[in-house]
Amino acid sequence: MSRKSHPLDPLFHPKSVVIVGASKTPGKIGHALLTNVLKYGFKGPVYPVNPKYEEIEDLKCYPTVLDIPGEIDLVVVAIPAENVPKVIGEIGAKGGKVAVVISSGFKEVGRDDLEKELLEYGRRYGVRILGPNIFGVAYTPKRLNATFGPTEVREGSIAFITQSGALGIALMGWTIVEKIGLSALISVGNKSDIDDADLLEWLKDDPHTKVVLVYMEGVKDGRKFLKVAREVSKKKPIVVIKAGRTARGMKAVSSHTGSLAGMDSVYSAAFEQAGILRADNVEEAFDWAVLFSTGKVPLGEETVIITNGGGVGVLATDACEVNRIKLLDPPEDLREAFSSYMPPFGSARNPVDITGQATHVEFEGAVESAIKHDSVKNIIVLYCQTAVSDPIKLAEVLVEQNRSTEKPMVASFIGGEEVAEAMEIMREREFPAYPTPERAVKALAAMLRWGRRRKLLDRV
Amino acid sequence: MSRKSHPLDPLFHPKSVVIVGASKTPGKIGHALLTNVLKYGFKGPVYPVNPKYEEIEDLKCYPTVLDIPGEIDLVVVAIPAENVPKVIGEIGAKGGKVAVVISSGFKEVGRDDLEKELLEYGRRYGVRILGPNIFGVAYTPKRLNATFGPTEVREGSIAFITQSGALGIALMGWTIVEKIGLSALISVGNKSDIDDADLLEWLKDDPHTKVVLVYMEGVKDGRKFLKVAREVSKKKPIVVIKAGRTARGMKAVSSHTGSLAGMDSVYSAAFEQAGILRADNVEEAFDWAVLFSTGKVPLGEETVIITNGGGVGVLATDACEVNRIKLLDPPEDLREAFSSYMPPFGSARNPVDITGQATHVEFEGAVESAIKHDSVKNIIVLYCQTAVSDPIKLAEVLVEQNRSTEKPMVASFIGGEEVAEAMEIMREREFPAYPTPERAVKALAAMLRWGRRRKLLDRV
Repeated sequence: MSRKSHPLDPLFHPKSVVIVGASKTPGKIGHALLTNVLKYGFKGPVYPVNPKYEEIEDLKCYPTVLDIPGEIDLVVVAIPAENVPKVIGEIGAKGGKVAVVISSGFKEVGRDDLEKELLEYGRRYGVRILGPNIFGVAYTPKRLNATFGPTEVREGSIAFITQSGALGIALMGWTIVEKIGLSALISVGNKSDIDDADLLEWLKDDPHTKVVLVYMEGVKDGRKFLKVAREVSKKKPIVVIKAGRTARGMKAVSSHTGSLAGMDSVYSAAFEQAGILRADNVEEAFDWAVLFSTGKVPLGEETVIITNGGGVGVLATDACEVNRIKLLDPPEDLREAFSSYMPPFGSARNPVDITGQATHVEFEGAVESAIKHDSVKNIIVLYCQTAVSDPIKLAEVLVEQNRSTEKPMVASFIGGEEVAEAMEIMREREFPAYPTPERAVKALAAMLRWGRRRKLLDRV
Repeated sequence: MSRKSHPLDPLFHPKSVVIVGASKTPGKIGHALLTNVLKYGFKGPVYPVNPKYEEIEDLKCYPTVLDIPGEIDLVVVAIPAENVPKVIGEIGAKGGKVAVVISSGFKEVGRDDLEKELLEYGRRYGVRILGPNIFGVAYTPKRLNATFGPTEVREGSIAFITQSGALGIALMGWTIVEKIGLSALISVGNKSDIDDADLLEWLKDDPHTKVVLVYMEGVKDGRKFLKVAREVSKKKPIVVIKAGRTARGMKAVSSHTGSLAGMDSVYSAAFEQAGILRADNVEEAFDWAVLFSTGKVPLGEETVIITNGGGVGVLATDACEVNRIKLLDPPEDLREAFSSYMPPFGSARNPVDITGQATHVEFEGAVESAIKHDSVKNIIVLYCQTAVSDPIKLAEVLVEQNRSTEKPMVASFIGGEEVAEAMEIMREREFPAYPTPERAVKALAAMLRWGRRRKLLDRV
């Protein structure tokens, strides 16, 4: 990569990984961290640090960071909170650049003093701190999984920043099951030093990241966050789930993290100005991110719906209207093109109903007509499983068509086992497919919203 | 069953099933209908009718309905539209009561004349007509699957009425994958005779149906529908997905079915007065139905959230506030009970955070405390997968606890493979579990809304 060096580079592509508090005991966090780094296939040297052991997992184990023979840059710390500040000092003395502080027992349990001390050590010794109170960091392009979550994170283009540890780890497992690929996964916890803005700044220029998804409960420095977010949003979309939207939710946030959630309407307005897309919940956020991870950008507003079921066509039409997606009235030549892929009782108007008689061949023809025609900017494909059609063949066709065009495409497939299989194929090959028409439409609507905001940001 | 006889009884528990247009050719609708009836295990006689064959699937095949030796009541008709009216006459002459007219080619393609003729034959010969232009009917308690959809429909308590054929068949397959059980599945198509109101009336007294889910694009007789719906809603909830909510959606409906969708706001107001719950989309409708299928009724408003993750606790709290679910401030004795199942840094306030250290044992204890305490009326359980807890054991615990109490319970599980397995276990054993906190909360909110409306209906 030809980009300038950045203070957070060692967090994502370290030369080596040090694990302070590495353990031999399965079930311990210090064991999971080490085995994840090894199993996930990190290419550089890995140095376990623990005065109790000579070696762990066939690796020489060092009593302290200072005893490591080679150069260090990224250090994961999983030892009792009281001992962390001193270790930060040693890391700095040894030339380490970033410490991923897994340990809890700081501000989140009222030990503001200890967190302050940790931060002071970091500043004094030139060590940037991620955390404390986190489950780690993963960056799939470098096969780095320094978390105590699941091992087999899928490679992809979504960077996920999470303030909640439990939710983050649980979602890590969920993305594996759902075949959703991540570029990065960063647990920020107490955000004592490195915060969302710092990470966004780094991810902005990361060629492997096409969209940034943030779960946040509060922001430390709102002005800084919004300033960076504006810059990032011009280039790639940011999707935020902001918890603590209601009075009682805010109360829950402060009792949970000690951070102040702040007025929700203020957040919403500020997010919008910064080009940030706010999702109502986790499912929606990932729905949108899956579309954004294709790296496509909106080319315009005019959208067509191609369906083999009248009912889902109506549901999608409703959803388009509600979510302000402009449905194209197809010009005559396009209507003629569509008509050649449907029986006489089909409809070449929008929604384009190629009817329940359609196989993947008619779908392919109709979609290809939409791809080729300049008046169409976005394509929504709806499929209801029928006896005459093969959802897996259709999935394969759509994957190829999506790769062949810059026009954003989304699909909804409804049906049984074969549809579940087709959905997997599409997810694995980065085609944004959803279980309902509404979720497909809402994802496209988010992309178009981002396109509109981005234009406004560029003008300022 | 000791209930009075009803004209639609033969549709759901026929003595025999006649299939006019039964076929030997796999892939044909007349073949799928016959094999589904046989494979799904219908207990009475099955009579294929088709002049072309002597026998089909080892059953004697009759040239006409009139040649059948035994008594008939339910007749499925899958022959070209032009021939249907005459066959209705023969069915009536032979004593048949209900005809399920699969055939298309009537009003939906502009042949209003043929549909009128069909209806006249039905009236003249005393035969009630379901359809035409439908995929059939299934009633699982009697192992009746007279559809050309998937065979292995799961038994359960949700009755699903659908005006869209393609969507209905596709969802039929989807319910099998999702382990969602149905009591009945009825395709209504053109609703020439039997309409939603007739079906609701029958389902009201069906002991196997705990909730009725309706996908509709238009209502023929609004007054009749609302009158029946009011009566049904007092007893069991009705969830409606009404397509054609927007101007463009309505236009799509009329070009698709020829029926008039009508003003959406009028529908919403009328639904509310009739106690009907309106769902925004198919996923939401089934989310709600899954909770209703437990047969539980709301006992009150006060709700507690029990979670092992602070973040999801906040998300659920927000969702409760937005969806008007009243979160209980737990009285002191209950707080004490909760506290015994969490470390000191947990929270016994609501959301009750038993922390990431919780195993299924702590969950069980905390949930049991909520079940036993009178102040709690509803329980929301949130689980984020952790290394120390087993989601499958927790699922088993919750299934039992849900069976032991009349209090409505919902859960959200987030995580990897084991969570996917736990979700399956819960769905199979009729515990309402969802992939996000918001969907769990919204399902409970729908139940509480039904409870409030039901009270108002009772007063009128």
